[in-house]
Amino acid sequence: MELTNIRDLFRNKEAYENKKITVGGWVRSIRNSKAFGFIVVNDGTFFEPLQVVFSETLSNFEEVQKLNVGAAVIVTGTLAPTPEAKQPFEIQAEKVMIEGASAPDYPLQKKRHTFEYLRTISHLRPRTNTFEAVFRVRSMIAYAIHKFFQERDFVYVHTPLITGSDCEGAGEMFQVTTMDLKDVPKNADGSVDYSKDFFGKPTNLTVSGQLNGETYAMAFKNIYTFGPTFRAENSNTTRHAAEFWMIEPEIAFADLEDDMILAESMLKYVIRYVLENAPEEMNFFNSFVDKGLLDRLNNVVNNDFARVTYTEAVELLEKHNDKFNYKVSWGVDLQTEHERYLTEEIFKRPVFVTDYPKEIKAFYMKLNDDGKTVAAVDCLVPGIGEIIGGSQREDDYEKLLARMQELGLKEEDYGFYLDLRKYGSARHAGFGLGFERCVMYLTGMSNIRDVIPFPRTVGNCEI
Amino acid sequence: MELTNIRDLFRNKEAYENKKITVGGWVRSIRNSKAFGFIVVNDGTFFEPLQVVFSETLSNFEEVQKLNVGAAVIVTGTLAPTPEAKQPFEIQAEKVMIEGASAPDYPLQKKRHTFEYLRTISHLRPRTNTFEAVFRVRSMIAYAIHKFFQERDFVYVHTPLITGSDCEGAGEMFQVTTMDLKDVPKNADGSVDYSKDFFGKPTNLTVSGQLNGETYAMAFKNIYTFGPTFRAENSNTTRHAAEFWMIEPEIAFADLEDDMILAESMLKYVIRYVLENAPEEMNFFNSFVDKGLLDRLNNVVNNDFARVTYTEAVELLEKHNDKFNYKVSWGVDLQTEHERYLTEEIFKRPVFVTDYPKEIKAFYMKLNDDGKTVAAVDCLVPGIGEIIGGSQREDDYEKLLARMQELGLKEEDYGFYLDLRKYGSARHAGFGLGFERCVMYLTGMSNIRDVIPFPRTVGNCEI
Repeated sequence: MELTNIRDLFRNKEAYENKKITVGGWVRSIRNSKAFGFIVVNDGTFFEPLQVVFSETLSNFEEVQKLNVGAAVIVTGTLAPTPEAKQPFEIQAEKVMIEGASAPDYPLQKKRHTFEYLRTISHLRPRTNTFEAVFRVRSMIAYAIHKFFQERDFVYVHTPLITGSDCEGAGEMFQVTTMDLKDVPKNADGSVDYSKDFFGKPTNLTVSGQLNGETYAMAFKNIYTFGPTFRAENSNTTRHAAEFWMIEPEIAFADLEDDMILAESMLKYVIRYVLENAPEEMNFFNSFVDKGLLDRLNNVVNNDFARVTYTEAVELLEKHNDKFNYKVSWGVDLQTEHERYLTEEIFKRPVFVTDYPKEIKAFYMKLNDDGKTVAAVDCLVPGIGEIIGGSQREDDYEKLLARMQELGLKEEDYGFYLDLRKYGSARHAGFGLGFERCVMYLTGMSNIRDVIPFPRTVGNCEI
Repeated sequence: MELTNIRDLFRNKEAYENKKITVGGWVRSIRNSKAFGFIVVNDGTFFEPLQVVFSETLSNFEEVQKLNVGAAVIVTGTLAPTPEAKQPFEIQAEKVMIEGASAPDYPLQKKRHTFEYLRTISHLRPRTNTFEAVFRVRSMIAYAIHKFFQERDFVYVHTPLITGSDCEGAGEMFQVTTMDLKDVPKNADGSVDYSKDFFGKPTNLTVSGQLNGETYAMAFKNIYTFGPTFRAENSNTTRHAAEFWMIEPEIAFADLEDDMILAESMLKYVIRYVLENAPEEMNFFNSFVDKGLLDRLNNVVNNDFARVTYTEAVELLEKHNDKFNYKVSWGVDLQTEHERYLTEEIFKRPVFVTDYPKEIKAFYMKLNDDGKTVAAVDCLVPGIGEIIGGSQREDDYEKLLARMQELGLKEEDYGFYLDLRKYGSARHAGFGLGFERCVMYLTGMSNIRDVIPFPRTVGNCEI
């Protein structure tokens, strides 16, 4: 069918004015008078809907009058400018074809619904203003991230989802198996006989593609991953999901400084892209979801991120220990309350915290000369806390091996990883951006369940 | 560090000629004379390497002479044009910093290795010419796909990986669980007590995001997915992997014709993008992997795809039944040998086969007026066979329900899917593109294990 997207009408108004066009979309509302009526139609391509005027000249006038919210229609008519009205134009309908009716029990009648209720109809909620905006912006953020890295000649790497290793041992993992759970094959000693499983050994869903990503950075210099990751954590918070997407760039011949420059440019690029390409959605969020959002994002785009070492940050935070549930002192991991205090109260902008105690960071991070801290960096942003975690990687074979032994990691599980330090090792660094956190940050939405199309959390795996 | 990518030197030669630059990369080969030497350096950003000339003026001349293949170096010097040589320029090194040596047992010495051997070192193989080319092109294809859809205002949807349903019941699935496999919780009757599992019910890895994707198409009109999918099939072929990526666009107010137009434009767009942006890699494939590749792809870009109904295709194929292991007759599913014969021998170009018997296609495909066939389409390409499978979806509530009942599908499992036909149903269509098949098609690589960074197949889940 030759349909015009409503987006094109709004973006290229002049090209369509007084022309005959056909639009397909869904009824958002309808008002009837005796001899005419108005339908507000949304086709999902643009945040603003299109007003359709129809009159008794329609052959199916009475049927059209009876349309209700949610029905699908195909409208042909002329696009007429309406300089005096709120909307810039309307369609004067010659023909309204009813493509599909909407049953009277349609759950999205024209009234406000709570986000909680809308989560129970995740297949219908993208038809509401808020979720239309959230999921178009989510799509644009994803694209902006690809665009940013591809324009800089980074190679996009698909790291595996099913894995035989547990990477950094981070958090609980989901097991993947084809064995019959009613009757799991066992060895003589009662242990599970994984030789009977699909891969012939225990396998899990990945928690990070980083180690695999590093192998490609040592071939392509600059790479990024963008894919799903999983955590089987039994935590029911507004910021955790069992399945989420991560972006993990990895850069060779680069140190922590290069890593921070990359992270800052990426975040600014993505914010700019969304502000430019989804102004209607962003204004909506700013008015109805998170007042102050636009100020905050513009502030980020136009200012340098602050920088502070972990040691300095602890000194700053200790002065406010009366405000925290968990008291801060050197050596403890920063909690969300501390992170938010730093970025929201002390710096009032995004801040990089660097050089954490080695004890609270992963084995692969590069040991600093002080012998106590590692070249790690977390990027904290107002409203969220940590949005990015990264580090320069230990590139010295002996130091890495020693650290692994200290932590009881088995050398044979990391042969491929040690190889990278054996054959042409180069300083390198990388970071992980939680994609959903990024979407929350840019939209002002406060629950991760509301930025994932079909969220998976403890006890919840619907549709 | 202020490094220049070798890619930029080749793409913007004029900007760098006779300028001092610094490049970081890995030694591909080295030749020594008494007072000078040559190092061929690759930094992974460009298919062609860079020649570095060094001489005894280097403070570490003797050390540099001893470098071996795989070592990481950072070279500073002047880019000098070499009009008489094979390569367009070289660097005259003032300084060669040895970033990381390469142990003498480096497996990638300058000799040819078989693809089979390289699969055993999947963490190092992207450092070879072939795999550098494959994985850069893979990255570009992924980006071209995003670009194609985003330029057309399609919304990118992340459909879930962990799922409680089995979608079209296609193939064997991987189970996802956090239960202790040594001691799976059981109910009194001996069945598995899934209330103890993470999601409180049995869950699997998705085989397709289509049904979820449809819910978003009925909100955004045009959407696409691009994510991993899984099949636990015990098949050890060159075309099957347990984990692979799929692209699944879904378009509303659209029929099978629109679907084919979309598929054809997408494939042509992606081929053009790769031919333009990776000419060096594509020439390499054409010379060393698959002679005739460029002719074939140019032929695709410049010609319309052929179209034939299943019924016509069967008539054509029946005439050649003597050539097939499986004989063709109306009602049988086409095998790869038939698909390839159609596209390679009969049409000699990509071909859309449409309107298959409903018995061999999925429940959600739209029934044609003949009552026997459905509005399905497969796109077959030379060298591969099926690369795309799609259909117009059944948009009539009653017909869909009847078909589900015929096949014994439980209505309660598909409530969300039936809702789409109840509230503003619109004709819609979509297809699935196997991403790896697409990479194989564009590179000429013949084994799926060689186009996935870390392939997962039966018994194989390394790194």
